[in-house]
Amino acid sequence: MTRPRLRELGIAIGRHPCGPLNAITDVAGVSVGHSTVRDGDRIRTGATAILPHGGNLFQDKVPAGLAVLNGFGKLAGATQLRELGEIETPILLTNTLATGRAVEASLAWTLRQPGNERVTSVNPIVGETNDSRLNDIRAGRPTTDEIAAALSAARPGSVAEGAVGAGTGTVAFGLKGGIGTASRRAGAWTLGVLVQSNFGGLLRIDGRPVSSDPAHDRDGSIMIVLATDAPLGDRNLRRLAERAFGGLARTGAALSNGSGDYAIAFSTSPSARRTPDRRAGPAMIEELGNDAMSPLFECAIEAAEEAILNSLCAAEDTDGWNTAEARPAHIPALAIPLRWL
Amino acid sequence: MTRPRLRELGIAIGRHPCGPLNAITDVAGVSVGHSTVRDGDRIRTGATAILPHGGNLFQDKVPAGLAVLNGFGKLAGATQLRELGEIETPILLTNTLATGRAVEASLAWTLRQPGNERVTSVNPIVGETNDSRLNDIRAGRPTTDEIAAALSAARPGSVAEGAVGAGTGTVAFGLKGGIGTASRRAGAWTLGVLVQSNFGGLLRIDGRPVSSDPAHDRDGSIMIVLATDAPLGDRNLRRLAERAFGGLARTGAALSNGSGDYAIAFSTSPSARRTPDRRAGPAMIEELGNDAMSPLFECAIEAAEEAILNSLCAAEDTDGWNTAEARPAHIPALAIPLRWL
Amino acid sequence: MTRPRLRELGIAIGRHPCGPLNAITDVAGVSVGHSTVRDGDRIRTGATAILPHGGNLFQDKVPAGLAVLNGFGKLAGATQLRELGEIETPILLTNTLATGRAVEASLAWTLRQPGNERVTSVNPIVGETNDSRLNDIRAGRPTTDEIAAALSAARPGSVAEGAVGAGTGTVAFGLKGGIGTASRRAGAWTLGVLVQSNFGGLLRIDGRPVSSDPAHDRDGSIMIVLATDAPLGDRNLRRLAERAFGGLARTGAALSNGSGDYAIAFSTSPSARRTPDRRAGPAMIEELGNDAMSPLFECAIEAAEEAILNSLCAAEDTDGWNTAEARPAHIPALAIPLRWL
Amino acid sequence: MTRPRLRELGIAIGRHPCGPLNAITDVAGVSVGHSTVRDGDRIRTGATAILPHGGNLFQDKVPAGLAVLNGFGKLAGATQLRELGEIETPILLTNTLATGRAVEASLAWTLRQPGNERVTSVNPIVGETNDSRLNDIRAGRPTTDEIAAALSAARPGSVAEGAVGAGTGTVAFGLKGGIGTASRRAGAWTLGVLVQSNFGGLLRIDGRPVSSDPAHDRDGSIMIVLATDAPLGDRNLRRLAERAFGGLARTGAALSNGSGDYAIAFSTSPSARRTPDRRAGPAMIEELGNDAMSPLFECAIEAAEEAILNSLCAAEDTDGWNTAEARPAHIPALAIPLRWL
Repeated sequence: MTRPRLRELGIAIGRHPCGPLNAITDVAGVSVGHSTVRDGDRIRTGATAILPHGGNLFQDKVPAGLAVLNGFGKLAGATQLRELGEIETPILLTNTLATGRAVEASLAWTLRQPGNERVTSVNPIVGETNDSRLNDIRAGRPTTDEIAAALSAARPGSVAEGAVGAGTGTVAFGLKGGIGTASRRAGAWTLGVLVQSNFGGLLRIDGRPVSSDPAHDRDGSIMIVLATDAPLGDRNLRRLAERAFGGLARTGAALSNGSGDYAIAFSTSPSARRTPDRRAGPAMIEELGNDAMSPLFECAIEAAEEAILNSLCAAEDTDGWNTAEARPAHIPALAIPLRWL
Repeated sequence: MTRPRLRELGIAIGRHPCGPLNAITDVAGVSVGHSTVRDGDRIRTGATAILPHGGNLFQDKVPAGLAVLNGFGKLAGATQLRELGEIETPILLTNTLATGRAVEASLAWTLRQPGNERVTSVNPIVGETNDSRLNDIRAGRPTTDEIAAALSAARPGSVAEGAVGAGTGTVAFGLKGGIGTASRRAGAWTLGVLVQSNFGGLLRIDGRPVSSDPAHDRDGSIMIVLATDAPLGDRNLRRLAERAFGGLARTGAALSNGSGDYAIAFSTSPSARRTPDRRAGPAMIEELGNDAMSPLFECAIEAAEEAILNSLCAAEDTDGWNTAEARPAHIPALAIPLRWL
Repeated sequence: MTRPRLRELGIAIGRHPCGPLNAITDVAGVSVGHSTVRDGDRIRTGATAILPHGGNLFQDKVPAGLAVLNGFGKLAGATQLRELGEIETPILLTNTLATGRAVEASLAWTLRQPGNERVTSVNPIVGETNDSRLNDIRAGRPTTDEIAAALSAARPGSVAEGAVGAGTGTVAFGLKGGIGTASRRAGAWTLGVLVQSNFGGLLRIDGRPVSSDPAHDRDGSIMIVLATDAPLGDRNLRRLAERAFGGLARTGAALSNGSGDYAIAFSTSPSARRTPDRRAGPAMIEELGNDAMSPLFECAIEAAEEAILNSLCAAEDTDGWNTAEARPAHIPALAIPLRWL
Repeated sequence: MTRPRLRELGIAIGRHPCGPLNAITDVAGVSVGHSTVRDGDRIRTGATAILPHGGNLFQDKVPAGLAVLNGFGKLAGATQLRELGEIETPILLTNTLATGRAVEASLAWTLRQPGNERVTSVNPIVGETNDSRLNDIRAGRPTTDEIAAALSAARPGSVAEGAVGAGTGTVAFGLKGGIGTASRRAGAWTLGVLVQSNFGGLLRIDGRPVSSDPAHDRDGSIMIVLATDAPLGDRNLRRLAERAFGGLARTGAALSNGSGDYAIAFSTSPSARRTPDRRAGPAMIEELGNDAMSPLFECAIEAAEEAILNSLCAAEDTDGWNTAEARPAHIPALAIPLRWL
């Protein structure tokens, strides 16, 4: 990839420092995998997997919170995440019509892990945005196997951005969007964000308006995933997730009726993890108190904003197929150097 | 089926009259389909479809409300239902590990309906309970095609109860549960309920304790679907759905940690329907006011209680496979005549 | 008081044992105070205070959860309780038009406690039900001072029930309701419930219908307060509070449009308390895991049901003033011996 | 007042036109009243009243929605607003420790209106922010009478901004904040916003950073009130209210733990109003469909951002008393001409 990240353009969002990769994988233990599906002229789609840790996620669940800014989306797993305050599978991102297949892929992956031989109930977390402006979304891709490939591909380390994985066919601000990531540090803690950008509005970069294409529709969606090593309980993780919408708003998002905007935050802290012994009785759990949350909240705003902008920086011009209009489509990349308005 | 319904035992719940079928299909336009999947010694599962009307559900959406008593479940479609206050697909019920396939079945059914050729976003509603105490739930059944068969089988008229469709392998109060239905009339309006019973507790019938098997675990879940022809908006439909838990509580449900308890209510009233023209601008919508809701609330309590009891009355002794314990299982039917404690 | 409690009638709800007082004060540290205001022919009202512990509640906050079954009420403090998962004041119960004065009384009490000299933000928790069927509710009683008297009167030990404190003028099932309490033990933990009963429906006692007065209206409300010494986080306290509605439903409540039905649960566990040092950084907090909740959930159902019935058992025939109808009113007590239907 | 509004500085937020007054009172029927309480060196507080229409608000309720971005606040009336989707009183804004007195003032005002002689239940809506950085907030001001004066003062027409009414002692971005207002038009509809600004962060004006005082703490709160003449139901009013946080985020708000951030939206449309006849049975209600909401959502973002900035533009340097630190305080006004960073 030769396109620069936002910081390589000399623009740093906010005032908190970022981690070494400026990526969600700066949170130790988090891994990310992409499955990019490009086939012929019409298929531009894929899946992205985020794994909170490298162990058995079903047995050693992580506390998690969900924020729904606009629930026009097909997020799988929402109600159990809220009731129990935890996730027990990877988080999968894909397209709007692939969530059933992603649930299948996540289940199969979980059921076959050593130690899960007698598991009979699993709550897959699957988010989506609608890539039908560049993808023949009714064609049944990615398949279950193609989605499973994202799980197999998950690795720590640097994260590919732009038109990859679940971002292969997404569009933001009338420009090619996709996967973006960023991270921040607040004291001893690291917070990372990964987004699948696919929404509309009037683009601003660090507050300044930039040329984009208002002729494209404003709808779409965004999935935001936040990871932190701070020992947070599920309530404060939900609050952290809600702050990600501050970053979304600062990019100029229209927050339109048709945009499904979700943020999921989880903690990787071993001392907050829901291991089998801790779930079955009283246990000592480490938690950061309410009064200590504000710096992390600022990190969530900043990292979400920068992750969205990174998704635009990385994504290249893409040709594909507009399903609703049944015609070929072309979505341009963000012009670099930036064309300020 | 030779087993009696609750009223045939001389027991009528509550004080509101029921409709001619005492079933959810007393609400005009509602149809129900079952796909019962019994295969060998281990497969006891299936799917049940509830269709709010016989037209194009995606184009002519119905207002709907969701109540979550305990969100330990995998309900698909929850966040969009709440955000937009409507449903645009049939409601499918199946087992816990089949929701991905049910989403696929619902999508395929919706995408191929005439008029939906360019649809790129669909929000399937899929509920589930865990039938692993009688079913080899890890074996991948029902398949997508077996679930689709429930959609094809949907008909108005009388509804099969007990160990059929999504109730084929479910267990309630340590007894064989399954599908049950009931209806009530309040003034000009009809309200119907259909349940998939699979939960624990100490069974009471019309308040009186009955012999059941407390040795079986208390967990499980219940899906409750409410239909009414009253012109209700989504907020009052949510409130109506919440009252169904009153009926659940009166049967002696333990409301345990592991029980995923959901109720979805929709209105079939044409004057409340979300047709394309009404969604795009200002429209006159018929709505029953807050102050008129109490009789319908009582109907929801009564019909939910009776539907649960009907599911027990109808279900017969069932042999199957306990997945978590990897052994054959036998679940007895509710003894009739009733053995009061 | 010579009227018997429910157990003295030979009726025990459920299967869990109760504590020595069968009262919310069986939870160590909890104290309750009543201020009963009867004046002339028309004033039948008051206030009741529940204190989670005897220390400085503002400094040493307790985790808490709120469940709203039907939000037709004026509960003060709801949003902060939910956001922060804690309470920092006593819980005050009073009548519908007295919540402003109760907020004033709670603030004054908190601001003058040693250690709170520089406090500038306090979140009083005030619940209410509408006693206007026996009380001239527009007359401005209880006054702020009369409400403050409930705080001063708070004591551990046995709790007066029936037409006392916030229950002085309330009506349930067309009968005189009021304050009731009960407790349960599950393993090492104690759970206590106190209710202010003021709602309608068709009364059942342990499931069996009892003569009450259906001519009276079905509206009203109930406030339910749950205390436990189990170390629960705010999410599981909310879930615990929701189970109280199971007990409410089993008494035959109509769950009508006009009933404001709330339950607040808190934990007195010192190891779960939000002390200043724990709020400001990472801290070890004791929490009971999700999988251990079911016995406590059953206790909440049982204790809520019995507390409601105790409120009816204790309350005596009361004369007063029906404000809406501007006429004298008489509300009979529950007939003892019970008149089963 | 000689300080300019934002547009007089040549800065217009967003792309939608504003109404003739660029104020919430551009929505026909809405009136606003301030009660400014300045007394000696220490009292800098007050109240502001917003009335949806000039009739009997209790009898002719307006549909309303509530959004809670961060519920660290003492908002009165939240749960009934959500349950019934309506408001039946003026909206009062005041300081954190005055909500009880504001409830009293709102009740008294409502109970004495002609037609309300037999009313026994009222749900006052009272929001607050904490003005203790400039006000001796523990001193019991504004009194109930001082709050009632805001109700009496309510008028249509232009709205005083800055350090008036409930904004007399508030602080935003370390600068003097207060009351601000703005409006937008989208097609036939008008939307107006009024804010009480009292929060922290790093100020941006139309996206560009501006000098403010980061030495001041980041906490505080904001109350946002949105009015529209579009015929919206309560669900879409809640969604509209949520968009106001987009405007908040764009000003650079820190969205900190201690900030109580609420938005309440109501519709003044007579065809959506909850008149007595409409509440008691089926009625035809006018509603704008989901698909028509996006332009109004954009207006909410824009008007909220501009209202906040107008509050800063209008407020002047203020001396007062910092309650928590027990010392005199001085808060500077936003420097004009603007000092861009």
